[in-house]
Amino acid sequence: MTRTRFHQGLEDLKQRLLIMGGLAEQAVDRAIHAYVTRDVEISQKVLEDEKTINVSEREIDESAIDLLAMQQPMAVDLRFLFSVIKINADLERVGDQAVNIAERVIDMSKFPAADLPVDIARMASIAAGMVHQSLQAFIEENVDLAQQVLEGDDVVDEINREAFESLTRVMKSNPDLTRQALDALIVARNLERVADHATNIAEDVIFWVRGADVRHGVSNPASS
Amino acid sequence: MTRTRFHQGLEDLKQRLLIMGGLAEQAVDRAIHAYVTRDVEISQKVLEDEKTINVSEREIDESAIDLLAMQQPMAVDLRFLFSVIKINADLERVGDQAVNIAERVIDMSKFPAADLPVDIARMASIAAGMVHQSLQAFIEENVDLAQQVLEGDDVVDEINREAFESLTRVMKSNPDLTRQALDALIVARNLERVADHATNIAEDVIFWVRGADVRHGVSNPASS
Repeated sequence: MTRTRFHQGLEDLKQRLLIMGGLAEQAVDRAIHAYVTRDVEISQKVLEDEKTINVSEREIDESAIDLLAMQQPMAVDLRFLFSVIKINADLERVGDQAVNIAERVIDMSKFPAADLPVDIARMASIAAGMVHQSLQAFIEENVDLAQQVLEGDDVVDEINREAFESLTRVMKSNPDLTRQALDALIVARNLERVADHATNIAEDVIFWVRGADVRHGVSNPASS
Repeated sequence: MTRTRFHQGLEDLKQRLLIMGGLAEQAVDRAIHAYVTRDVEISQKVLEDEKTINVSEREIDESAIDLLAMQQPMAVDLRFLFSVIKINADLERVGDQAVNIAERVIDMSKFPAADLPVDIARMASIAAGMVHQSLQAFIEENVDLAQQVLEGDDVVDEINREAFESLTRVMKSNPDLTRQALDALIVARNLERVADHATNIAEDVIFWVRGADVRHGVSNPASS
């Protein structure tokens, strides 16, 4: 295998990861659309589409392993492949969160609609935007954009904390709405996890581009 | 670098991953001990120990990349290194779940103790046991043991579902216990996620040993 063909393989892998990212984003968008419109049918669609995401994850992993096996990669390519493996796992888990949300919508639909003090749509828009931005940073090899994603995580954490407090108050003062408030609280936590995965992806992008590890707030030069 | 030295590197990496696993298990055990005894001091210790787990994760990743860079690994070694990277990420997230539990204990300690219809200690024992078993399967390259872990996941999911229902009933019938019931519900979900990570690890062990992908219920021969 020539180095050119190897690089073509890396490029293909990148494209497939972006498609995978698109599927994961779409799953979150759909799940939230289902939440907002209380649509069980769309929720079922999210559950079905999980299979496609899982197949895509497996194929990307296999391609990454094949590329690692075919040719001794240079350090920069190695870090790229390492990042792809990690990002791939995070995207699959974004898909899992969409499934969790869809399951809550199905549960929720059995109870009367309730007006709750949490802006799930706004929270979803920030979290899904972070996933999108982290993949954009990946395409552009853009460290600054990846850094912005890290900042977004604090915003989502804060909204989630507020949602927890306000929804607990609803449950206490209006026990009839306990189930609905609980479903909303879990959806908020799922979105907080989507934002966490976007953060992981952004960190992997920085790791790959800079060759430095920014995870857990530590930035040290990498040793390879 | 000779192949012997390369294999020594793989063996060292395995040992470090086991130590990492021990730290993650310990974090869960401690967090649950803190939950059961309502001990804020132990919870703080769990929060502090997260740093050690994060450093360990980074070092293992760097070693795995170094090994990939030093010598063209054979297919079986490549799958091993791939599995180490994935298991490492899962173990770090087990540590994150322990932190989440410890944070709930700190929250919980501000409210009166409540007798709740959920056996967190039993659930924790199963979930932590699954992590332990998945690492045991990794050491022994034991596919049967890894399969057992996959079965344990259904048990934990069921306990979590029951906990959700019974704790929702508590909140409805006794709004004064809302906060405590909510903390217990979230701890139960965190333990369910610990079991998910153990399941991921078990799947990675099977992938490595058999060269087959059992994730998402699909078992097909790998292509490298």
